[in-house]
Amino acid sequence: MSKLLESYVAGRWYSAPDQGTPLLSATDGHEVARISSTGLDLAEMVTHAREVGGPALAELTFHERALALKAVALTLMAGKAEFYALSTATGATTRDSAVDIDGGIGTLLSYASKARRELPNDTVHLDGEPEVLGKKGTFLGQHLYTSRRGVAVQINAFNFPVWGFLEKLAPAFIAGVPSIVKPASQTAYLTELVFRRIIESGLLPEGSVQLLCGSARGLLDHLGGQDSVAFTGSADTAATLRAHPNVVGAGVHFTAEADSLNASILGVDAVPGTDEFDLYVKQLVAEMTVKAGQKCTAIRRAFVPTALVDDVVAAVGERLGRVVVGDPAAEGVTMGALASLEQRDEVLKSLRGLQKSARIVVGDPDDFEVVGADRRTGAFLPPILLRCDDKDAVEPHEIEAFGPVSTVIGYDSTDEVIELVARGKGSLVASLVTRDPGLARKIVLGVAPFHGRILVLDREDAKESTGHGSPLPVLVHGGPGRAGGGEELGGIRGVLHHMQRTAIQGTPDVLTAIGNRWVAGAQRFDDGVHPFRKNLAQLRIGDTVVGGPRQVTRADIDHFAEFTGDTFYAHTDPEAAAANPLFGGIVAHGYLVVSLAAGLFVEPNPGPVLANFGVDGLRFLTPVKADDSLTVTLTAKQITPRSSADYGEVRWDAVVTNQNGAAVATYDVLTLVAKGDAETGAAR
Amino acid sequence: MSKLLESYVAGRWYSAPDQGTPLLSATDGHEVARISSTGLDLAEMVTHAREVGGPALAELTFHERALALKAVALTLMAGKAEFYALSTATGATTRDSAVDIDGGIGTLLSYASKARRELPNDTVHLDGEPEVLGKKGTFLGQHLYTSRRGVAVQINAFNFPVWGFLEKLAPAFIAGVPSIVKPASQTAYLTELVFRRIIESGLLPEGSVQLLCGSARGLLDHLGGQDSVAFTGSADTAATLRAHPNVVGAGVHFTAEADSLNASILGVDAVPGTDEFDLYVKQLVAEMTVKAGQKCTAIRRAFVPTALVDDVVAAVGERLGRVVVGDPAAEGVTMGALASLEQRDEVLKSLRGLQKSARIVVGDPDDFEVVGADRRTGAFLPPILLRCDDKDAVEPHEIEAFGPVSTVIGYDSTDEVIELVARGKGSLVASLVTRDPGLARKIVLGVAPFHGRILVLDREDAKESTGHGSPLPVLVHGGPGRAGGGEELGGIRGVLHHMQRTAIQGTPDVLTAIGNRWVAGAQRFDDGVHPFRKNLAQLRIGDTVVGGPRQVTRADIDHFAEFTGDTFYAHTDPEAAAANPLFGGIVAHGYLVVSLAAGLFVEPNPGPVLANFGVDGLRFLTPVKADDSLTVTLTAKQITPRSSADYGEVRWDAVVTNQNGAAVATYDVLTLVAKGDAETGAAR
Repeated sequence: MSKLLESYVAGRWYSAPDQGTPLLSATDGHEVARISSTGLDLAEMVTHAREVGGPALAELTFHERALALKAVALTLMAGKAEFYALSTATGATTRDSAVDIDGGIGTLLSYASKARRELPNDTVHLDGEPEVLGKKGTFLGQHLYTSRRGVAVQINAFNFPVWGFLEKLAPAFIAGVPSIVKPASQTAYLTELVFRRIIESGLLPEGSVQLLCGSARGLLDHLGGQDSVAFTGSADTAATLRAHPNVVGAGVHFTAEADSLNASILGVDAVPGTDEFDLYVKQLVAEMTVKAGQKCTAIRRAFVPTALVDDVVAAVGERLGRVVVGDPAAEGVTMGALASLEQRDEVLKSLRGLQKSARIVVGDPDDFEVVGADRRTGAFLPPILLRCDDKDAVEPHEIEAFGPVSTVIGYDSTDEVIELVARGKGSLVASLVTRDPGLARKIVLGVAPFHGRILVLDREDAKESTGHGSPLPVLVHGGPGRAGGGEELGGIRGVLHHMQRTAIQGTPDVLTAIGNRWVAGAQRFDDGVHPFRKNLAQLRIGDTVVGGPRQVTRADIDHFAEFTGDTFYAHTDPEAAAANPLFGGIVAHGYLVVSLAAGLFVEPNPGPVLANFGVDGLRFLTPVKADDSLTVTLTAKQITPRSSADYGEVRWDAVVTNQNGAAVATYDVLTLVAKGDAETGAAR
Repeated sequence: MSKLLESYVAGRWYSAPDQGTPLLSATDGHEVARISSTGLDLAEMVTHAREVGGPALAELTFHERALALKAVALTLMAGKAEFYALSTATGATTRDSAVDIDGGIGTLLSYASKARRELPNDTVHLDGEPEVLGKKGTFLGQHLYTSRRGVAVQINAFNFPVWGFLEKLAPAFIAGVPSIVKPASQTAYLTELVFRRIIESGLLPEGSVQLLCGSARGLLDHLGGQDSVAFTGSADTAATLRAHPNVVGAGVHFTAEADSLNASILGVDAVPGTDEFDLYVKQLVAEMTVKAGQKCTAIRRAFVPTALVDDVVAAVGERLGRVVVGDPAAEGVTMGALASLEQRDEVLKSLRGLQKSARIVVGDPDDFEVVGADRRTGAFLPPILLRCDDKDAVEPHEIEAFGPVSTVIGYDSTDEVIELVARGKGSLVASLVTRDPGLARKIVLGVAPFHGRILVLDREDAKESTGHGSPLPVLVHGGPGRAGGGEELGGIRGVLHHMQRTAIQGTPDVLTAIGNRWVAGAQRFDDGVHPFRKNLAQLRIGDTVVGGPRQVTRADIDHFAEFTGDTFYAHTDPEAAAANPLFGGIVAHGYLVVSLAAGLFVEPNPGPVLANFGVDGLRFLTPVKADDSLTVTLTAKQITPRSSADYGEVRWDAVVTNQNGAAVATYDVLTLVAKGDAETGAAR
């Protein structure tokens, strides 16, 4: 008997007391593993996540979580050979496995990188700038995100046993929310192996990830308003879960990524002989055959100008004729098996549905060759292209055959194809192949409300294109309506879905204390030491230096114009400047103002401040006239030590005022500052 | 018989053929109006919204929609006297009506302003910066928001007949999504009056707003994946709607704002005699009595350090003793009636539930005075304070008495109060009264995951504070769990909930065409005319000027240091600069680089460019050494004409490169540019 898969529950591996259900190889039907969750204490899992995993994650900043994920990714990458070996049992070719295994590990690395670049080294993420709620500036609002106090239940589909679980896990982990991973049984053996390697690495805090192999029945009964369920799978199962009393009435956050009838559109300009025509055909064939078409993002509907349908069918048929179906481990095989005999039967059933309004023009499900395997025991199918000439047909827009199956549909105008695409009632992705940016704008904006992602392909981006079917960690993945309404990935967007946004109202001091970012109006500190003399360990938010006043003379302005060449009339021509509706006379250059301000706040000697690497949000608020006097106030606003470097970033609030106290310019100055020892002040 | 309220459906007022149900005055029980939706064609409403309202809104930019809302607000403001007059029938005092009527109109004005400041003058909103997806820069991703193609159904509660409908309508309208407004029957006469004035104004495009007076039963049957339902009301009704097949299975976006047990916490520092103690008591009394406590944001749980419970009860009792209950139109009355006798009975029922674990310490529901009205026909109640000394009590955290009722609960530590607050399982708002920012941070971050908004009150912000119970248009309104899980308002955040986010992948040219914002790598245009010579009508995205090269000499650097006073060692001390890990030698000031760049791209003569009002996202990428040569390329990136001014904003992409072609600095330059005539080029 094969191995019984284990679950990882509350810090230990759990093995069910029964023999479980056999999981068969997609290719030859041999028993790969058995699965059972009999006797598993689901309530304990949920409690462990909330009471051990959540608090452990709360101890880590976004950056620390990111570094942990990076370490996990590197560990998995080093040992990926065994994942590839096991992956063939799922019916995957090496190319298919790369999408799943390297794609999954790459997602961890992407999140590890994004989190450190775009989130603070903190546990709270500020959303937007403070809103001034009163004229005197004593009362402001600030939106911020905090980690939910519950568990993220992740119910994955069978088609991507590695990527599917890592793409859901990474954003939740960065958000500080513990995960319960529930793989689809069919391919759970691969998820279990990868998960086991993660646990063995000891790199993630206990309780932050748990694994549930087998049935999750009853799990939602234990969830509440701080918990979430992210489901990938069939629309029917999604609807069942979404109707659970705890989703309907107790505020469980439920998101789904479900079946969708993704479209690929050939532009009217992309006639045979153009690069775009070939790109369209090539991409359609790739999407039909990668993972044997078992991708929720695969192309199900191929929209082609009516006049080009014959050409497309011929070209696709020609390419599909070269596809070799069989054992993914066998020489020359380019398309493997479906995940199981049951999946193959499902596809055949959907195919019969599609045939009500479309006819098969390429491929024969009853007659095809299989290399290195047996059609009776392996879940094989050939790629099948259908053609639908009935524009009122319902089936092509409603039935998803989750395998190597697509339907070509003709269209006669831009408006018509937009309307036809929308009949899918919401999809994960669409693609458009055209070299005409104007046409791209019209079609993309026409179908965008129905999609989570749209790819526009032409000869220019083809080489770098990652393809219609590939969700990317930095772009959102999910779609409205039939696609389930969920939104995963998208870089930090995916992290924030696990956090609660709250508007905080209070004084500048209170908002500064809560958000760890200095808010205008909050206390400033001047202990006599120039803040540029302080390393990261010594500097605190609110540390301030005031420089000036310095008078700006007409000679300064004249000189600056001459020196820089910026002789814009408002700085040089009194008469023309007087006619300017905003200035009414000669004004100093904005760049002169900030240059002089730097001269007023800078501390010239070597010290912990290594460089000024940028300026954000510079606004010139009051014109500076000759003989105005400028004062600058520079205040430490936000401090972001880098976990993996001996320096960090300090954002400074800068305000330049004139002799009347009016703000002339406001901006953030960005510097790199060395870490160091709080007592000696030595940079290290 | 009183007037039968009408619905506004598909461009006409609809009057039901039956007599409808009487709506009675809260104060004296007289019949104010009758209501019925018998015979109303709900499918027609939905179709009209989608096919007439949506397309009409799609013709308008965000700014144009904003100006329409502003005009509506000004119209309503001018005629608000009649709204106040009718509002007394709902039991509202003048203070109550101001919250509802002026609050509602103010929300329109806030959205009109925010949309013009924070959204482009376009129909598409870009989300974030482009993501580079390939090393050669031919393939990028850009997230953007487009308007959903459906209808926003807005089901409102009885307590804010004006604000409730306008706060849902404004974000949907700005988003370009048509609304169907469905007021709660009890106070629908006031909504109908305001709505009628909006229709009479003719300011909004036909189909963009419709009104449904009466039952909405069956409406959800007509909705799909592009439609949304925003519901405010009881948790039970929310759960029923959320379980509708079209929500569960067809992707209707459903959000709710439901009952919640909002907490107000007195900090341990706020002992009797402090301003904060008084503020706490005063706020609690206000929240109990405004709208007779019929606010979803009112304080239901008053958490007080155990040692201070007696003091708080005494102080609140003292203030509540001065409250005068009665006809809101009568002299001296400070608290009006509940909305109906049914509502009063509901509150009495909840009160009995609360009394299982708490006792009444102020107020007697069976014995109180009513001024100018009859207790038998008006829906009156006195303010009632309960006290719960049982920390294991369930009722105060579960039962919401939707009237002038609060419960005081003692706590003994910061951790304990955080845990007690969380027992509410999600609330719209909490408030904390303390003068200690450290305590504020701990409590706020502790309870934030359970709240949509948190107010921190102290003596400093008290005068400007808008109070615990007031949602503001610029801050999010809604809460997780029991509060319904919805999120409304929050400025543009509320608009985006009505739009679909889509990741677009393509070449820089395609992304530029789709997003109307120039993307690095896209085509640049140089027709020989300096783009600063072009007014808004002539300028197009991609118009470019290249300036330079200009050599930066060591003398320039020395001079700039001396002239500005910026003598930072990296610019002045060769030995110290050589030791800097980032520079390895003398470098030019960043401000010198951008100043010289301006000199290279500027066109000095008077023309349509009026001013440089700012710089965004300046990053110094490569140090500039002495004798490096700088070239700047300035490209029109985004053009935002102001609908209400004779100029607009132009955002320019600036890249400074050195003699090796390496990017030295990248930033956006912001200018004001005059509109004008495309042919003559004259600014106008």
